[in-house]
Amino acid sequence: MSKPVFDTVALIGIGLIGSSISHAMRRAGLARRIVGHARTEATRATALRIGLIGTAHATAADAVKEADLVILCVPVGACVRVAEEIGAHLKPGAILTDVGSVKGVLVREVGPLVPDGVHFVPGHPIAGTEHSGPESGFAELFDNRWCILTPPEGTDPAATEKLRIFWQGLGSNVEVMDADHHDMVLAITSHVPHLIAFNIVNTASHLERVTDSEVIKFSAGGFRDFTRIAASDPTMWRDVFLNNRDAVLEMLARFTEDLIHLQRSIRYGDGETLFELFTEARRTRRGIIQAGQDTAAPNFGRPDGGAASTKPAKT
Amino acid sequence: MSKPVFDTVALIGIGLIGSSISHAMRRAGLARRIVGHARTEATRATALRIGLIGTAHATAADAVKEADLVILCVPVGACVRVAEEIGAHLKPGAILTDVGSVKGVLVREVGPLVPDGVHFVPGHPIAGTEHSGPESGFAELFDNRWCILTPPEGTDPAATEKLRIFWQGLGSNVEVMDADHHDMVLAITSHVPHLIAFNIVNTASHLERVTDSEVIKFSAGGFRDFTRIAASDPTMWRDVFLNNRDAVLEMLARFTEDLIHLQRSIRYGDGETLFELFTEARRTRRGIIQAGQDTAAPNFGRPDGGAASTKPAKT
Repeated sequence: MSKPVFDTVALIGIGLIGSSISHAMRRAGLARRIVGHARTEATRATALRIGLIGTAHATAADAVKEADLVILCVPVGACVRVAEEIGAHLKPGAILTDVGSVKGVLVREVGPLVPDGVHFVPGHPIAGTEHSGPESGFAELFDNRWCILTPPEGTDPAATEKLRIFWQGLGSNVEVMDADHHDMVLAITSHVPHLIAFNIVNTASHLERVTDSEVIKFSAGGFRDFTRIAASDPTMWRDVFLNNRDAVLEMLARFTEDLIHLQRSIRYGDGETLFELFTEARRTRRGIIQAGQDTAAPNFGRPDGGAASTKPAKT
Repeated sequence: MSKPVFDTVALIGIGLIGSSISHAMRRAGLARRIVGHARTEATRATALRIGLIGTAHATAADAVKEADLVILCVPVGACVRVAEEIGAHLKPGAILTDVGSVKGVLVREVGPLVPDGVHFVPGHPIAGTEHSGPESGFAELFDNRWCILTPPEGTDPAATEKLRIFWQGLGSNVEVMDADHHDMVLAITSHVPHLIAFNIVNTASHLERVTDSEVIKFSAGGFRDFTRIAASDPTMWRDVFLNNRDAVLEMLARFTEDLIHLQRSIRYGDGETLFELFTEARRTRRGIIQAGQDTAAPNFGRPDGGAASTKPAKT
């Protein structure tokens, strides 16, 4: 157990990320007290029952009153409304942060709602699963993943540093960057990948000449990988695309341009170009495994990957 | 151990699929003798050393002479050349099959090279990993996956039936369909998914405003899932796209049309359309898990999925 970093932490929103933060805080002893608010009575009851929070508040305003750290764990589109509600109730000296996948809009729209004397340091843990809700969290979610903090200009460096220590206590590596750069990086490493996953899953299910049952039976040819991230929370992802429009559109344009280049190589039978581009793609996988950001086990170590019965081949 | 289905089986090509067939044949006792040919001396030596084959032949023609079942486990683009080489040496009554991801071209180009008295039944196991080579195979690769057989018109039903029993012995479910329909189904469940995975990995690595190191560090936001299938064998995939051109181009056109619809919804802030399409995509995932074609464990059961420490949430 570390020394607690904060006395009271308030979780506003208790889904996959909120519940995982609670598990990881308790694992490391980072807070003396965890309180929280969730929109529905059912979620608040679940959170109390499984011990994610010590006290449940029916309003966000009540939940934040005594908190030294307030973490907004709601979809990006709900952050402004919550900030408007809690602004006047935040404790002087408290740190306000969030976990949203888009940061520029937070700095621009939530920043002005934060009263003087409260430190606003937006954050984004690059971690998740396709599951949602208060029972989907677990303490290991952030281990060895990265959390990006995007303090606006003029933020007290001591507040950023304290939040860095908190996230390191949750198991993360921490990087500090500008909010707009964050949004550009995440557009390509997360938002566009999700969009094309949602898209191909729907393309497949709208075909007339291939049945849904065939798509499902033969999904192990590659398609099933895409369905995992396409199973992520629709509200969260709607908000991401509405709030990171420009960066997503820029990255999509690059993606489509490159795809049309590949398509043209297929149409004209240019095997050399295909071979070169496919060979190049292999290298990035190697970098990700070396950086500890994915497993080297075949098929991600799925039961059918045979990981238990064979050592992974060198790739 | 089942009763052997074939006396002598010849593997032509000993990579991920050839070696996995060997492991699975031995697990079930499906052949009395396994012989094989690989293009390089190094692969033949490895295959002998780890017991994938009892006898290694320096030419494919020599390897097939005594075989009751010949399985071409080479990239699709190499099948015609191999068929030309072995045609005159196939044993009367033998079954010739393959494991390629494209079937129409096999029926049209390899079929005519098969002598009378030899049964040609093309096949395609929908299973694999991102790893390649004779040491990447394992006996469980085909368990509960599907194998599609595409016998040309006029094929002896007894030969198709015997091959069905063989693949069931390897652990697969078996479905028989027309070669062109196979190519259409696989274009959407496997070929286009691989193409867009190769593509986004290269788009990401060619950006000027996001560094390769950032792409790698923050890949857990979704991108890393795509890098797995983008690490698959470049030669195999080049051949797939060159040989399934029409179906791939048709499915790509559908994919792009749908993607532009999503892109337009983002540009004009149409959250309702995004929400509906994302919700719909979730259903397909559920179908795949119910059909036993993927695991319900978060993040495919990767170490960071927390699968060991929590029961998967209902999605």
